[in-house]
Amino acid sequence: MLKQVLIAAVCGAVMLTAGILIGHYGISSGSSAPAWVKDVARDVDESLIEKFLSEVDNIQIQENLRELTKVPHMATTAGDERTVQLMLKRWQDPDTGLDQAWREEYMVYLSFPDPKNPNKVTVVSPSAAVLYTAREKEKLYGPDQDDPEVVQPYAAYAPAGHPQGKLVYANEGKPSDYQRLNQTLDLRGTIAITRYGGAGRAAKAINAAPYGVAGVLVYTDPLDINDGLMSDVNETYPHSWYLPPSGVERGSFTSRYGDLLTPYLAAKEETYRIPVENITGIPPIPIQPIGFEDAYALICELGGQPAPADWQGAFNCTYNFGGPGFKPTSAFNNSDVKLDIYNHEEVKNSSNVMGVIRGSVEPDRYVIYGNHRDSWVHGAIDPSSGTSVMLEVTRVLGRMVKQGKWRPRRSIIFGSWGAEEFGLIGSAEYTEQYFAKLSERTVAYINVDISVFANATLRASAIPSVQNVIFTAAKQVKAPGLDSTSVYDNWIRYANRTSAAHGTIPRVGFLTGAGSDYAAFVHYLGIASMDISYTYDRTKTNARIYPAYHTAYDTFDYAAKFIDPGFISHQAVARTAGNVLIRLADSLVLPLNCSDYAEILEMYLKNALHLYQDQLTAKNISMEPLKRAVAKFRSAATQLDQVIQGSDLANETPLKVRRINDQLMLLDRAFLDPLAFPEKYGYRHVIWASSGANLPTFPGLADSFANADLPELTGGWEKVHHQLSILSQAIEGAAHTLDDVI
Amino acid sequence: MLKQVLIAAVCGAVMLTAGILIGHYGISSGSSAPAWVKDVARDVDESLIEKFLSEVDNIQIQENLRELTKVPHMATTAGDERTVQLMLKRWQDPDTGLDQAWREEYMVYLSFPDPKNPNKVTVVSPSAAVLYTAREKEKLYGPDQDDPEVVQPYAAYAPAGHPQGKLVYANEGKPSDYQRLNQTLDLRGTIAITRYGGAGRAAKAINAAPYGVAGVLVYTDPLDINDGLMSDVNETYPHSWYLPPSGVERGSFTSRYGDLLTPYLAAKEETYRIPVENITGIPPIPIQPIGFEDAYALICELGGQPAPADWQGAFNCTYNFGGPGFKPTSAFNNSDVKLDIYNHEEVKNSSNVMGVIRGSVEPDRYVIYGNHRDSWVHGAIDPSSGTSVMLEVTRVLGRMVKQGKWRPRRSIIFGSWGAEEFGLIGSAEYTEQYFAKLSERTVAYINVDISVFANATLRASAIPSVQNVIFTAAKQVKAPGLDSTSVYDNWIRYANRTSAAHGTIPRVGFLTGAGSDYAAFVHYLGIASMDISYTYDRTKTNARIYPAYHTAYDTFDYAAKFIDPGFISHQAVARTAGNVLIRLADSLVLPLNCSDYAEILEMYLKNALHLYQDQLTAKNISMEPLKRAVAKFRSAATQLDQVIQGSDLANETPLKVRRINDQLMLLDRAFLDPLAFPEKYGYRHVIWASSGANLPTFPGLADSFANADLPELTGGWEKVHHQLSILSQAIEGAAHTLDDVI
Repeated sequence: MLKQVLIAAVCGAVMLTAGILIGHYGISSGSSAPAWVKDVARDVDESLIEKFLSEVDNIQIQENLRELTKVPHMATTAGDERTVQLMLKRWQDPDTGLDQAWREEYMVYLSFPDPKNPNKVTVVSPSAAVLYTAREKEKLYGPDQDDPEVVQPYAAYAPAGHPQGKLVYANEGKPSDYQRLNQTLDLRGTIAITRYGGAGRAAKAINAAPYGVAGVLVYTDPLDINDGLMSDVNETYPHSWYLPPSGVERGSFTSRYGDLLTPYLAAKEETYRIPVENITGIPPIPIQPIGFEDAYALICELGGQPAPADWQGAFNCTYNFGGPGFKPTSAFNNSDVKLDIYNHEEVKNSSNVMGVIRGSVEPDRYVIYGNHRDSWVHGAIDPSSGTSVMLEVTRVLGRMVKQGKWRPRRSIIFGSWGAEEFGLIGSAEYTEQYFAKLSERTVAYINVDISVFANATLRASAIPSVQNVIFTAAKQVKAPGLDSTSVYDNWIRYANRTSAAHGTIPRVGFLTGAGSDYAAFVHYLGIASMDISYTYDRTKTNARIYPAYHTAYDTFDYAAKFIDPGFISHQAVARTAGNVLIRLADSLVLPLNCSDYAEILEMYLKNALHLYQDQLTAKNISMEPLKRAVAKFRSAATQLDQVIQGSDLANETPLKVRRINDQLMLLDRAFLDPLAFPEKYGYRHVIWASSGANLPTFPGLADSFANADLPELTGGWEKVHHQLSILSQAIEGAAHTLDDVI
Repeated sequence: MLKQVLIAAVCGAVMLTAGILIGHYGISSGSSAPAWVKDVARDVDESLIEKFLSEVDNIQIQENLRELTKVPHMATTAGDERTVQLMLKRWQDPDTGLDQAWREEYMVYLSFPDPKNPNKVTVVSPSAAVLYTAREKEKLYGPDQDDPEVVQPYAAYAPAGHPQGKLVYANEGKPSDYQRLNQTLDLRGTIAITRYGGAGRAAKAINAAPYGVAGVLVYTDPLDINDGLMSDVNETYPHSWYLPPSGVERGSFTSRYGDLLTPYLAAKEETYRIPVENITGIPPIPIQPIGFEDAYALICELGGQPAPADWQGAFNCTYNFGGPGFKPTSAFNNSDVKLDIYNHEEVKNSSNVMGVIRGSVEPDRYVIYGNHRDSWVHGAIDPSSGTSVMLEVTRVLGRMVKQGKWRPRRSIIFGSWGAEEFGLIGSAEYTEQYFAKLSERTVAYINVDISVFANATLRASAIPSVQNVIFTAAKQVKAPGLDSTSVYDNWIRYANRTSAAHGTIPRVGFLTGAGSDYAAFVHYLGIASMDISYTYDRTKTNARIYPAYHTAYDTFDYAAKFIDPGFISHQAVARTAGNVLIRLADSLVLPLNCSDYAEILEMYLKNALHLYQDQLTAKNISMEPLKRAVAKFRSAATQLDQVIQGSDLANETPLKVRRINDQLMLLDRAFLDPLAFPEKYGYRHVIWASSGANLPTFPGLADSFANADLPELTGGWEKVHHQLSILSQAIEGAAHTLDDVI
């Protein structure tokens, strides 16, 4: 019996094993899982993120910055080409590079001063004697400022010309400023001196021209940039981060983004270009920026009545309106101010440098990470602090790819944009050229331009759906210099708000303007975007921006000594942005949260009802469709969130995950209306478009409401109603995309 | 021993079985294939198509038509509501209905005559005696014409008014016709009689107004509709399909599609509406259609010089220009023609009826099949021949779904559009309301409006990428009445062309206009669309269209006797369109062919080079970017085709198939430019937009070229260059979407 049992047992065991083997391997067709089944279900790998965070190196970032800022690299100069080569070399490196990297060239319309005929600002006596000449170049405090490639301060796109007239002080050059001044003075033929702030650069000249102003000066008041400090003997750079008296903010004086001659078309050699005289949004009269040293010499000599209290700056004199002109007691009495501006425009070849890591599972989904490469001078902070961070992110990720340790689920595209300083040109042309492809496939855009304004706290502006992934990432990164505090916990101390869903959370800003290369991605393409940096402790400074911004003092020395000694804030930004990037690229379900979007829409709606409902009701315009649209958006978002949370998505068909991801990815596309704002170039996003009203509510509604009763407009209230319908339909359309798909 | 062997054998067998079961089902994690693996790889089932084809029943179609045409069902009338209820009943049928069906309502701007004050056309003597009165209603040949709901013939959107003046004959009312007439006569204050054809309905009045014409009549000349036949004693309906003398073509006299008061916005109750006076593209002066019986009475009495030979119609008299007015020998000598038009506009509630079959694998991909439901009178052919076919398609598919025998891979949406006759309103409002969702997810749109114009051959107009699936389907359907010939083989005899890739193939038309509800899908959404029907043997008739079009004779009786006795052409269309629908919904790889698109772009390019290159070269405008763009499109298309053909897609990750399908699905979106044609409402597709030049080449280029040297335009050649850049960038952008995804 034992034998029988043994036979049976052995036989049974053999047969069982054979059966298992047959069953497992033999019944192949339709039953054993193809290799890709695991791949398509793979989620983000937290240990990989740990590895990434640990490998991001502050010294590498420091050396990137040192290399990037060796020479000035204004767009299309030899220094710019040097950075193109550097980016290509890094991204094509066999050990730490990307899958591919290449350049993309555009022929773009730029504006430069004439090195042989520098722009001049002089005080000229009635007998034509030159009584005073403003500096042509910034003062030398080190070898960087001595580089012959340091471009003279100028206002890009300001016309050449030689206006001469009595000086007046026009505060910030806002419409209200010129209006106020015009009540006191005849502005015809005058030269207006203005300070940075309050209005866009070009606006200071555009607002002046209707009053007959002949030319404009602009400077940075120490009140606005230096917390009042003025002396280079001990107070300003190289003694601190503050702007030296001769420092001048350069800039692009255009209100539009993208190449000015090729609206909505990529600026290739044979592309149609509009006639130069059709360009709008640039200064109609000459304008020139000067240092506060020179502004002091002019403003404190002005005659006429004292300007209002809120026009006064930090100079130790009363800011008068001007007689017009200087006061009788001044050595400049009866003298004019003369501008000799020799700017010229040129179509030049500007490059983006592009690099990619091909996605393994969904190569047709893109996460784009970008920053511009061009600077005004050495651009250590703007933009090279961001480029140094980007190069460190690509080094760490590139090495993992080259070592075969990682390949993202989705493709990652890196963009090193050209000619941003002239108007976000490289990124805008890129989006024009690849409009369809990028619209269809881009999951998100991460912009890290100036990565460190200051070393106090993280700052993020973003489309609401990406708020959460920034938070997740920031919680995993240590705050620089604070080993036991996360970037997130540090952030929440500096800027927070109360969310109905999340309680107290860091305050994330909105991307309503065109301050950096995210503009085309948000406003033209409707892509979930974010702009990330480290920034100020506002209890410690009121500076408009870091003081060396766009000057010859924005150098490696400045960055290393005063902005981020040890480059640990750079490192924190690299870790945070890189973490966000990996999560967007690798997560099974995209970390985009539509309920967070609903919360912001509800806030905008609340503000809109508060601001407009009474008057709209009186005009017989109902806000009910808008209310219904926001409510529908909320309920669709809640439902989609429930589907996500209620599903075991790793075990469902990958097409279900893709479906949900497409809903999340394409959400912002639904807010685009290319005809909503015909007068605003490049703004199609009905939630985030720029707005003159500048209120935390829907821009088209706010602007049309602000203008509804202007006497020069007819049908103003019809326009409000029209904007309300455009907006309601867009929000409802977005809600439809979140609804169950059929 | 036997026992032992038996024990061992039984035991072994049991264990083997157990092992197989354990091996197959037990080792689940990571190795046995999830159930969905088979589903996502499933391709179209040819036996199901066979089943579908065999179940499509001509008698069902006949009975559908009988039911649909019992009473007139002009948009928003009680008869229209009756058809709404019919559609809902059918689509909600528990045995043969769809998953879901519902109505969607819009408040749309329509135009009607006044039943209490019928429009009148009279001849009035100098002493105000009425010498002649045109018919107010069509002659009765059966009970259908006697229905009180038969709307009086009128020109929708023509203004009310009472113009009176001397009659002139203006041929087809084209700009050149009025120009010619104006060389001979002073047109101020005249009434112009025109015939249908040559120009759009509204254009006949719009073109007249600048010459001071006070009112317009329009009729259908027997030459253009009846192959010259005129007598209702034996030649016209009810003796044949030809138009009786009193038959009048009604129509919408607007050049735009969609609700006129809510451009780009779905016409909901509280939607912003433009002021009525801002509507463009409608007649500025009264216009009224009449029968040729009345036209004969007027035209043959006209004085003045004989009109040119190509202005002559089929009447047995010379068509004179008019003196202006009647000839001295006429009883109408010195008399005026007077129009009394009482049309009024109204915002009314119009419904679409929508129905869906939810997709099993990719519910977020839509194949849309639609037709309008509203008619002018009984609308047996227009549109009920199409609706009868749609109802038969949904009955057969619905039954398969309800029986659990089939569920499509992708979702199918059926649309029964309202108010098409007034300007494709229902479909346009639908695309406006669901713009984002439909843009993102729609694979194709199939339009079957008039399904049978005549019973000779299939006719298709389509986006080139769908040509191939129409061919595949047409090859599987027997031509009506020709058992051994396929619809495809029959078609190729009537209309063919030579393709470099395919040899001789049926000629497929282009969707360049707004002739039916495909317009918003093609021109506004950029969706691969097609319009399918059975049509004429052109060797047998020159009729502009089937003669009862838009008259009170377009009845079931007319359809059953003269258009498609036995309803076998209807059946062939149902089989062909349904086959296309199933293939689009079920194929693993979408049956959209981008190389066929390349072939048409190359043809357009060839024509453009032939037509424009010399003159553009002389103007220093290079066509090289366009050539490069088309070449790039071709090479990207070839490459994508190779990927498709070279892959074993049923065994690859479903995300790879989806990626390719997305490339194919979204191809036409890349051709959209919402700013390309600011003066053409709703036209965004740079390849298929309507064109005044009406040449087989790129519309923006053709139109800008035609106008480049017009003296009233400045910058005409700049516009040509601009259009060339828009076009080149769009084609190149489309090519980028076909390229390898990274």
